[in-house]
Parts: sequence; C-alpha cells; structure tokens
Amino acid sequence: MRLLRLGEPGRERPVLLAADGRHFDLTGVIGDLDRAFWVNQGAESVRAAAEAGTLPEIPAEDVAAARVGAAVARPGKVVCIGLNYRDHAEETGAAIPPRPVVFMKDPYTVVGPNDDILIPRASVKTDWEVELAVVIGARARYLESHEAALDVIGGFAVSNDVSEREFQLERSGQWDLGKSCESFNPLGPWLVTADEVGDFQKLGLRLAVNGEQRQNGNTENMIFGVAEVVHYLSQHMVLEPGDVINTGTPAGVALGMPDHPYLRAGDVVELEIDGLGSQRSNLVQA
Amino acid sequence: MRLLRLGEPGRERPVLLAADGRHFDLTGVIGDLDRAFWVNQGAESVRAAAEAGTLPEIPAEDVAAARVGAAVARPGKVVCIGLNYRDHAEETGAAIPPRPVVFMKDPYTVVGPNDDILIPRASVKTDWEVELAVVIGARARYLESHEAALDVIGGFAVSNDVSEREFQLERSGQWDLGKSCESFNPLGPWLVTADEVGDFQKLGLRLAVNGEQRQNGNTENMIFGVAEVVHYLSQHMVLEPGDVINTGTPAGVALGMPDHPYLRAGDVVELEIDGLGSQRSNLVQA
Repeated sequence: MRLLRLGEPGRERPVLLAADGRHFDLTGVIGDLDRAFWVNQGAESVRAAAEAGTLPEIPAEDVAAARVGAAVARPGKVVCIGLNYRDHAEETGAAIPPRPVVFMKDPYTVVGPNDDILIPRASVKTDWEVELAVVIGARARYLESHEAALDVIGGFAVSNDVSEREFQLERSGQWDLGKSCESFNPLGPWLVTADEVGDFQKLGLRLAVNGEQRQNGNTENMIFGVAEVVHYLSQHMVLEPGDVINTGTPAGVALGMPDHPYLRAGDVVELEIDGLGSQRSNLVQA
Repeated sequence: MRLLRLGEPGRERPVLLAADGRHFDLTGVIGDLDRAFWVNQGAESVRAAAEAGTLPEIPAEDVAAARVGAAVARPGKVVCIGLNYRDHAEETGAAIPPRPVVFMKDPYTVVGPNDDILIPRASVKTDWEVELAVVIGARARYLESHEAALDVIGGFAVSNDVSEREFQLERSGQWDLGKSCESFNPLGPWLVTADEVGDFQKLGLRLAVNGEQRQNGNTENMIFGVAEVVHYLSQHMVLEPGDVINTGTPAGVALGMPDHPYLRAGDVVELEIDGLGSQRSNLVQA
C-alpha cells in the first residue's frame, strides 16, 4: 500500500493512494501515520476498509491542491547510516567503514517532500543526500538474525538527509549538528508498506539540482544492506514503531564534487526512488 | 516548583511536590510533563491550582510505594554536550573543545531516576555521567543573545548520561551509538522550574558507585555555560518545548580512571545535584 498525509503542517489527514491512482480519506480508520499506526496494526485496518469499499474518495482537484506532509508523523527518532555506499565514501575521502557509521538527526527536522528547505543563517555548505528511508513497524531489540530484521520493517520512503558540511565536519567531529537544522529531512511523498516494495536492495535513487542530475545510485551498492543495518542497530538500541532509519547516500553530493556546488536560495532539488515517488523542494534562506 | 511523575511506565500521573514535602495530584490540571505542558502554560495552571488549595493530596504511603517516572515525558529530542568540563576533557585525553561538542541520544532512552540501568549484551565498558539537564520551555530558533536563551529554559533535572565507551569511541567515531542503548538516560526525580533553581551555574553534582564517590563537580566549571549552550544550539537547530539538553559531565567517569572500573550487573549508581534531588539505579544485565 501507498500511504500519505495531506494537509497543512500539524493538521494532515492520512490518505490511501490506490493502485488505480485514486486517493481515499483514512480519517476515522486510523489516526495518523505515527507510532500508534503500527502498534494498532493500522495497515490491516486500512486494507480491510479498502476491500470493503467504504472509504470516501478525495476528489483529484483537492489532492492536487493539497500540501503533502511527511510520510511519517512524529518519528520517535531518526537514525542515520553514514558512508554506506562505497562510491560516496570514496568521494568524501573517507575510508570504507568496517561497521555501520551511526548518527542521529533531530526528529523535528522531518518535513513534507515538497516543503521548502531552509538554508541555515550561518551556512555556506548546505548539501543534499538522497536516501532510502526504512520505517520501523514493530519493536526491535537484540534481533537474532538478518531475517528477523525483515519482520520489523514496516515500510520505506524517499528521504533527503540534508547536511550542512561545515557544521557537520568542521565544528566538533560529531556530525549531528550539521544534520539537525530546521527542515533538513524531507520525507515522502509516500510511506510504501514493505510488502509492496519488492526487492528493496535493487532500487534506483536519483537526485537533481536545478534540473541537472547529481546522484544516480542503486541500493544494491550499499555496503551494509537494510537487514544488516536494522540487525546491527538492534544490538545497540531499541527500535520502536514509527522510527526512521536513513540508510545512506550514493555518490554525487556537493561535498564530493570538485567545485563543491553547495545549495543556494532559489535552487530546486528533486529526488526520487524507484516505486517510492518523488520530492521537489525549493531552497530558501532561513 | 518541583514537579514529578508517579506510576508505572506509560501510566504515570503528574504530581506537585510542595515546599512542605507534601505531594499533590495534578491529574485534571495538566496532562503530563511533556511538550503540551509548556505549550499550554502548564506551570501557570499548576501554580493557580496550588494557590486555590483545591489539589488532592496523595497520602505519603502511596508516594513511598510508587515508582518515580522520568521528569520529562516523551522528549522530542535529547541533545548532549560533550567534554564540557575541563577536568573531564583532560581525564579522557581530549583537547579542550573550542566550540560545544554536540551529539544526541535516542529520546526513548529516558527512564525514571530509580529504574534499572541495563548493561547492553555485548558491553564491557558501560560508564556513568552525572549531568545537569536543561528542559526547554519555549520554542527557540536563532536566539539573539545569551539573555534570550534564559527565557526559553523551562526547568532543570538530574540526568545520568549513561555511555558505552566501546560503542561510543571504538565502533565508528560517532558517539550516538554508545549513548543510545536501552535505559541509558535516567532523568529526574524532579523537573524543577527555572524560577526555583537559583544560580544554576553554582550547583554541586555528585555521583557514587556502590557507595564510593566517583564524581564531585560543580556547574561553575562548565566550559560553555547553560545560556551559551542554548544560544549555540539555537543557531543550528530548533529547540522545542519538552526537549532535553544534557550539559556535560565533570571528571570521575570510569573511562578516565586508571583501572577503568566499568559498571557490572549488581552495581548501584547514586547521583544528585544540589536542589534537584537524587537518583539510585541498579545495574542489570540486558
């Protein structure tokens, strides 16, 4: 299933995007695409309601006029994996990591897929990163295997792990500061449930700035695959329903390009992942 | 005011601890000590209810029998400042940082002040850190001065920034992995509102393991004071009501001692900060 959230910030309603392209209002069936959705088996409720044919359809013109909210409401945490594509590690001059590099973003950075991205006031190095986001669907703690990791994955989404490189790399060596600026995690448009994604280790990821392609990777080139990442994290922390994991970005970020073409106000960033939809964000000075 | 939460995990009720030591039930006056408490000016509601004399008193025997929950319910994020006391930076062999070192903990690590601390299964280097926690009371974004930073501080609490040093320092160079293990942030017993704390840059912090004192510091020895930390963070991220900032630990952690006496199952950690109460946690194998 493809699920999304339509409406102004803080007042989004949950919506089902059916296979035929029609949108259906999920108000009354589930609360929101949040932790409770997974805890209360919301996907099953949506499926049952869709099959019963009782969901109110949202007119296409209303859909077109509506803002798309983040694909996950209020994630409890956003965990990120750094340097998880060989070509990206190489372009940044970093060694191929022997274990997943784990850091975090402020969960409040999560915004809608087409919302403005704010360039921080002191920033001169705001950068982009298209990533496959994993949305946790069930509590995970000391998972016993990579197979068990698959069972706790609720779905996937397109994520832009926006990064301020000076804040990230030059201020203290700890990356979170450059990953947690306001609006730095556009997420969506859709939360695509795991059963619908197929082989999530064979998805193309692409990103363009002002119409020029910058990133063109495939999740098959992850150093640590999704199941290994989820398993590894669960040995160190508890993953809770609604948590988001950004699984790393392929080559092609500004940091890795010879002329470092960092983002400026007025730029437009577009990104997409096979089967997961696309984002389009305007860069605006904070 | 001293506010706390009594009850089993997930079912705590908010409570006022009056100056005379009596406890009053705040159910019906506020929802919980969470983001909404600050957004809805909950402290003023509590003060008005206390002055009206209408709050139901909780019998002392019920208070004594109750579990104390975390002093903050569901923080949106937990930001931490590393190496923020000169003596602690020196004991770990780190340079005195020229700017605040910023990292994050999984907000789900926040537990009650006397709850068990779980030693992660693969851990051999679980360590303690007594810290002054700042609780944000109002939204903060690009604050203009250190004075303005004071206005967004809602209160303070005792925090144990429990740390697994191998996960933190030896796995990837990014600290969050060793800071985000289950139960790694006992917080409380009380949320003490800012107006009641007096000079928060002159508070003694102490921690003992199995009755032996390990840390004995004072917040006057912070490298970056509370106002500077809040101001600095607000230039990089948005601080939201209910967010928690752990402001760093003084010398005396296991990492810095010659024999590295890391925590083992059966150990007891006790910590306290002047005016903010005390914690007592048992170490238990996860």
